[in-house]
Amino acid sequence: MTKRIFLLGATGSIGTTTLELLRNTPEGQFELAGISANSNHKALLQIQSEFQVPFVHLMNPESYSIASKEAGEFQLATGMDSLLQMLKQSEVDLVLAAMVGNVGLQPVLYSLELGYTVALANKETLVAGGHLVAELLGEDRSRLIPVDSEHSAIYQCLQGEKSETVDKLILTASGGSFRTYCMEQLEQVQVEDALKHPNWDMGAKITVDSSSMMNKGLEVLEAHWLFGLPFEKIEVVVHPQSIVHSMVEFQDRSVIAHLGLPDMTIPISYALQGANRTPLPQLSSLDLVQIGRLDFEAPDTQRFENLQLAYDAGKLGGSAPTVLNAANEVAVQAFLDHRIRFLQIPQLNRKALENHKHSSHPDLQGILEIDQKTREWTISELNRMQA
Amino acid sequence: MTKRIFLLGATGSIGTTTLELLRNTPEGQFELAGISANSNHKALLQIQSEFQVPFVHLMNPESYSIASKEAGEFQLATGMDSLLQMLKQSEVDLVLAAMVGNVGLQPVLYSLELGYTVALANKETLVAGGHLVAELLGEDRSRLIPVDSEHSAIYQCLQGEKSETVDKLILTASGGSFRTYCMEQLEQVQVEDALKHPNWDMGAKITVDSSSMMNKGLEVLEAHWLFGLPFEKIEVVVHPQSIVHSMVEFQDRSVIAHLGLPDMTIPISYALQGANRTPLPQLSSLDLVQIGRLDFEAPDTQRFENLQLAYDAGKLGGSAPTVLNAANEVAVQAFLDHRIRFLQIPQLNRKALENHKHSSHPDLQGILEIDQKTREWTISELNRMQA
Repeated sequence: MTKRIFLLGATGSIGTTTLELLRNTPEGQFELAGISANSNHKALLQIQSEFQVPFVHLMNPESYSIASKEAGEFQLATGMDSLLQMLKQSEVDLVLAAMVGNVGLQPVLYSLELGYTVALANKETLVAGGHLVAELLGEDRSRLIPVDSEHSAIYQCLQGEKSETVDKLILTASGGSFRTYCMEQLEQVQVEDALKHPNWDMGAKITVDSSSMMNKGLEVLEAHWLFGLPFEKIEVVVHPQSIVHSMVEFQDRSVIAHLGLPDMTIPISYALQGANRTPLPQLSSLDLVQIGRLDFEAPDTQRFENLQLAYDAGKLGGSAPTVLNAANEVAVQAFLDHRIRFLQIPQLNRKALENHKHSSHPDLQGILEIDQKTREWTISELNRMQA
Repeated sequence: MTKRIFLLGATGSIGTTTLELLRNTPEGQFELAGISANSNHKALLQIQSEFQVPFVHLMNPESYSIASKEAGEFQLATGMDSLLQMLKQSEVDLVLAAMVGNVGLQPVLYSLELGYTVALANKETLVAGGHLVAELLGEDRSRLIPVDSEHSAIYQCLQGEKSETVDKLILTASGGSFRTYCMEQLEQVQVEDALKHPNWDMGAKITVDSSSMMNKGLEVLEAHWLFGLPFEKIEVVVHPQSIVHSMVEFQDRSVIAHLGLPDMTIPISYALQGANRTPLPQLSSLDLVQIGRLDFEAPDTQRFENLQLAYDAGKLGGSAPTVLNAANEVAVQAFLDHRIRFLQIPQLNRKALENHKHSSHPDLQGILEIDQKTREWTISELNRMQA
């Protein structure tokens, strides 16, 4: 039976890998029923044309306006309400949420409300709205399948295991481009340096987050909601080779780990197949003899304060992770725009956390407001710093 | 409900760890209904006394004769027939087969015939009689739970997975005490050197087998029957730290691995619990940061010919693995008795394999005869070499 898919964030890194996977999949297994992007209308229309996608969405109104002149035998829309409407109309089996940023929250919550299975690559949904996702799913978490490499690894390690026997989750972190940098070196980091990731080829925002360890911090928050464990039972270990994608320690001191070459095709395929494996002969086997050695170190939250901020925000809960995430989006953009230095990213994040008025259980509207307010506050703080 | 256990090989390394585990288990969970040993009557009678075991068996008639003078309120017997009778009479739920050598074959086959679940730590049962075990179990392999560290690791990695998605098994090998030795150094190896294992504390026979890589060869043969995979899909990788206990590669290029500190308590507990986990707070957590690095190398079958011989014997099938195992037991004993040099162990094994008359599907009687004939042939070859 053909599985109908809505791919949110079709032109990004995960989206592109997903499309390549679909090209390598036997015909009739999947049907791309909907695609969305923020602003890359050219790429999106090409995908529409190649896969004959009936529902196409561009969040950016200007991009939509340009694209609408080329519209053909498909629906094209812009704006959040239209996207939610498209999700409903498309009647898909699975939504792959691969957009970057807080914009993923509403479509994911709505997809879950519609009863769809969601393959989740958008970190911010769980970071900001984890409590809402948890409420929507209740005890049955089978409709939410993680796509992130680390969470997919843990999800796979948990197959066939009883949740009460889990002792802790061990998320591996590459340590980013600046793993070995001292504070003085971190002071001097340039944008171009931060955009080079040693093991993974990803978008600019995530690559910077990886080099500042905010990425890992967001993953810790995500793991908390995905697997329902307290933050004391979620550990981060730095593993520069990114071969061990994450691990689970059980109460009998067994550790089950997921290993592989760094390739998002594996977790995407696993999620698209509904938490099942299918042959991927186009990928190379992991050759541990060739790799030779795997290293492990403790993360340094002094040099990479973002990781500590994520734990702190997670333990505070409520609005705190939303604030951290929103401040970080503004700060990373300011860094990419050469407006602030690398180490000012966590500084801004910390200030935003310290200055926000805590709300313990924000609803969707509340989250979006807190998100907006935090962005405004962070931008004004940025301007104040540079005045 | 109390689980009744018959512990075969109660005084050996696995037996001792099992008893320590039982001492740490809440009362009423397990009952030791039977114990056996080869000749260590003192230790066996102490175990009987501590656990109030009703069925006690000593294979060695002289040890039995001495022990029988101290007999009390329990049954004591010797000889294979009596052991089989005791297994039947004891009406246990689980037989832990932890004796060393070919003597394990008959009790394990009989236990499976009786419908018991068998926790298998005796390698030779599957090496020599794997085809008979497979016939007895049919498609339902759930009554056979491996206790060996590597096979338990693979067994755990396969939980919740579909067997048709398995691509290959990757058995890790410590490489033994002589991993880095060149041929000239291997020529000079002394018995005392071979009895020092870097990571595991085991009996003399297994420790020598580990340093000659026969141990890993036997494990390859065992894995073939336990998991029903051809030898082409069973790989060995040398991993000196023995932290990764083994791995499974799936068709989607995911590799699932079992890690832990080297401690047989974990696989024994997993097997006693019927392939389930229970808290083992007495064990230390794996601390990968403290360990720092994990190394992997290809095994060298030129320096460690036994590993190649095991693959060769496995592919030949039938009587060949029995011959290899029997010749090796004689050769290892001769080495321990200072009668031959270390590198003569694989030489003798190879000669025995080359000289034997192949039988493609020996029954139990056939296996025992081939085993006996091979021992006789190997001893006479030993004498001839030293004449």
